[in-house]
Amino acid sequence: MSSSSVNLKAVPGRLTSSYSEVQASRLDVSLPLPSVLKSSFSVVDGPKSSAAGNPEEIAKLFPNLFGQPSAVLNPGGSSVLSKDISLKIGVVLSGGQAPGGHNVISGIFDYLQQRTSGSTVYGFKGGPAGIMKGKYVELSAEFVYPYRNQGGFDMIASGRDKIETPEQFKQAEETAKTLDLDGLVVIGGDDSNTNACLLAEYFRGKNIKTRVIGCPKTIDGDLKSKEVPVSFGFDTACKLYSEMIGNVMTDARSTGKYYHFVRLMGRAASHITLECALETHPNITIIGEEVAAKKQTLKSVTDYITDIICKRSELGFNYGVILIPEGLIDFIPEVQQLIAELNEILAHDVVDEAGVWKKKLKSQSHELFEFLPPTIQEQLLLERDPHGNVQVAKIETEKMLLQMVETELDKRKQEGKYKRDFLGKTHFFGYEGRCGLPTNFDANYCYALGFGAGALLHSGKTGLISSVGNLAAPVEQWTVGGTALTSLMDVERRHGTSLLAFSPFNLG
Amino acid sequence: MSSSSVNLKAVPGRLTSSYSEVQASRLDVSLPLPSVLKSSFSVVDGPKSSAAGNPEEIAKLFPNLFGQPSAVLNPGGSSVLSKDISLKIGVVLSGGQAPGGHNVISGIFDYLQQRTSGSTVYGFKGGPAGIMKGKYVELSAEFVYPYRNQGGFDMIASGRDKIETPEQFKQAEETAKTLDLDGLVVIGGDDSNTNACLLAEYFRGKNIKTRVIGCPKTIDGDLKSKEVPVSFGFDTACKLYSEMIGNVMTDARSTGKYYHFVRLMGRAASHITLECALETHPNITIIGEEVAAKKQTLKSVTDYITDIICKRSELGFNYGVILIPEGLIDFIPEVQQLIAELNEILAHDVVDEAGVWKKKLKSQSHELFEFLPPTIQEQLLLERDPHGNVQVAKIETEKMLLQMVETELDKRKQEGKYKRDFLGKTHFFGYEGRCGLPTNFDANYCYALGFGAGALLHSGKTGLISSVGNLAAPVEQWTVGGTALTSLMDVERRHGTSLLAFSPFNLG
Repeated sequence: MSSSSVNLKAVPGRLTSSYSEVQASRLDVSLPLPSVLKSSFSVVDGPKSSAAGNPEEIAKLFPNLFGQPSAVLNPGGSSVLSKDISLKIGVVLSGGQAPGGHNVISGIFDYLQQRTSGSTVYGFKGGPAGIMKGKYVELSAEFVYPYRNQGGFDMIASGRDKIETPEQFKQAEETAKTLDLDGLVVIGGDDSNTNACLLAEYFRGKNIKTRVIGCPKTIDGDLKSKEVPVSFGFDTACKLYSEMIGNVMTDARSTGKYYHFVRLMGRAASHITLECALETHPNITIIGEEVAAKKQTLKSVTDYITDIICKRSELGFNYGVILIPEGLIDFIPEVQQLIAELNEILAHDVVDEAGVWKKKLKSQSHELFEFLPPTIQEQLLLERDPHGNVQVAKIETEKMLLQMVETELDKRKQEGKYKRDFLGKTHFFGYEGRCGLPTNFDANYCYALGFGAGALLHSGKTGLISSVGNLAAPVEQWTVGGTALTSLMDVERRHGTSLLAFSPFNLG
Repeated sequence: MSSSSVNLKAVPGRLTSSYSEVQASRLDVSLPLPSVLKSSFSVVDGPKSSAAGNPEEIAKLFPNLFGQPSAVLNPGGSSVLSKDISLKIGVVLSGGQAPGGHNVISGIFDYLQQRTSGSTVYGFKGGPAGIMKGKYVELSAEFVYPYRNQGGFDMIASGRDKIETPEQFKQAEETAKTLDLDGLVVIGGDDSNTNACLLAEYFRGKNIKTRVIGCPKTIDGDLKSKEVPVSFGFDTACKLYSEMIGNVMTDARSTGKYYHFVRLMGRAASHITLECALETHPNITIIGEEVAAKKQTLKSVTDYITDIICKRSELGFNYGVILIPEGLIDFIPEVQQLIAELNEILAHDVVDEAGVWKKKLKSQSHELFEFLPPTIQEQLLLERDPHGNVQVAKIETEKMLLQMVETELDKRKQEGKYKRDFLGKTHFFGYEGRCGLPTNFDANYCYALGFGAGALLHSGKTGLISSVGNLAAPVEQWTVGGTALTSLMDVERRHGTSLLAFSPFNLG
């Protein structure tokens, strides 16, 4: 496959002539650069790096990269990069969408146009699969222009494939050789950056000139470290969700009779929920990490919500908004335990209508199962993935919580502790937030990330993640550099096996 | 209750100090008025009016109002209204939220401030119940200010109660007398305006001085006639939904693998869906009225969607966005028939597990029931309202259609007619669109509606709906007047009984 690379015709999928007024107005908004990127700079190495954890194992996995320093761009200096160089750079979007991705590509493209001579940028189509299949477009100013400051990943599209097997690494190698790539920018989340690191190691180990630079992308905001203060897309997504949450809050206050249970994106981390709560001040916010730290159960979360509803009712308020992270139940140990037992039972036993099978559950799991609303019980038993496993991800957490709160309120009503007719509504704010028009912050941040990635490749770096810092200051004062990807790696132990992992909270 | 009216302390529920930048920036945006409202005008009656249908019956129901002319405001003229008059005006928000409601109230308030002396505006709290219970706040400039150009109905809140029984009319009368009301503005949809007309008739019939003026509100956009080109809120809601639909479309194109089934608000009419389709150009749009006109069945709608998915797949596109109005199944006669039969069976028979009960369904209904996804079948049988009736409104149409399309695609795949793995996602864009920041159009339109309502009351009119026209022209050229509510009324026959109804499509 990869030997027959396909250079697709570079026709933009968008017509600016059909743009809405707001899209058109965003097109020509100028993108300020950090001052270090506005004139000549030198790339200065820091001290030897280590790993986020288990350095010895990381060193074994990355013999060629481990220990390499992070780099920072300093103004002026002696090692100014030559303009008389022509680079061939590939770029790929990996995983879920995040507002600003198009600006990262614009940044890379503009850097090479301004700081090198006759360079070429290839956009791999449809994610890492585009690298393996050698499917790409050659970017031109006309091709890139319509996507400037616009949402989505549709300029070259994205995909979730990974470069994992030896054959796949070989395919990537062939594409790199066919296109004579000097560098590759991988725009992605934690998995994609782990992958970028493995690819950088592979290329260096085989003495292939292709260098690899990562860029921190994910609306979930859980890819961060001291040097990477935030991933792009988080700002836009939170603002979009907050607008909708604010609208629902106004609606709740206008009607005076509904409780809105709002589920927000973010499976491994509740950052979006927390940020939206800080922006909108809803009545109740559930944070998965807090639930885990307090070792809460589904029952205690339900009681927490129900207590507040009862207290508000006594004060005359019978409406409100409750924010819930979509990954909530992944943070509750008893749920994980129940799922594990269910998977075991469903694999080997018959689930009888009379419910005799339930005796095989341990007592805590049995109790939890009985506590779940009937629709959720059914969903757990019936909707299973191709391996026969229970599909936790399919559970609509906001609906489950609403049903459990309703049941608890009914009970309290019978006991005379609650006197109202409770009315709940559920919402999921998800996909509509991933492809919005990037905010000024994300537009500027992404452009700097891309520009910086270009500079890192220009200076010969590999195995770094583009890092733009000091983000609370005006853009001119932002710092630019690259953090050694290996310094952000750890080895996680799960079920007795070791897994290489990007350490998402390396804030040390 | 109503004899003891409660004047609530007029403290705004909002603090402008906590406003977001965009909320704050909207506060002081000046509201242009139609030129006729900017200087002196006279209110000129048109010809005697009739009814939208069944004029004889309407005449009997409204002996005091029937036939009264609509009115139009003309610049200058001889019958210029006196400024030396002090009016007591009540205002009430009725039914679901629509962006711009606060500006209608601002318009009424500002009109009376500018064109009369020492007038008072009472805001009835929580909808028509506020009138019956005599629960109100006295509006002041300070109280009204924070809500200018802002979304929501929370200034005085809304409610769905109706003034229907003789006792309730009596309560409204007592409040009108206690507050010495010269006029009442009812801001609401078709039902609320029908109610406003009945109240106007009641007051005139009893020689009570309180005049009643309606204002056309509903995001669904189905309250319109020649004189009332659109109801307020429709513009904002459609733009908000369109932004989200546009984002999902970009997401679909970026991922290249999902079909998004998007349900939009609008039960009795598909106007929102149609307008959003015109704004965003999705791949498939289902319009309820079209489905009804073509006498389509659920099966034919499913086939229509499935055919397009298959055709797109042959062209290499395996993603898309499908818009569905929430009232879709109300437009399908066979569904109505099935529901009627189910209600009958569920009221009298036992639903046995083996399904023998299904033999009681007529063959077409039986076929349709078997065609429905199992989860929808269960929902129809299990989730019933307090009267034991099937709850059609609870069916999530987008999920139902997705499941039916999945089933059909599976079938075609087995027949070799479709080769892909279909992935669908569902969305409901609803409440988050009802309370958004009003667009410039809705802000200006509502302000003119309120200002015009003030003028109509000032000139002694009753039983009219505030009508602002020529809306495609700049605001200065908008026409202002009032349309006789009785001229928009009809009598609908349902199940042998006659129902008074606002005729929503009186475009003659």
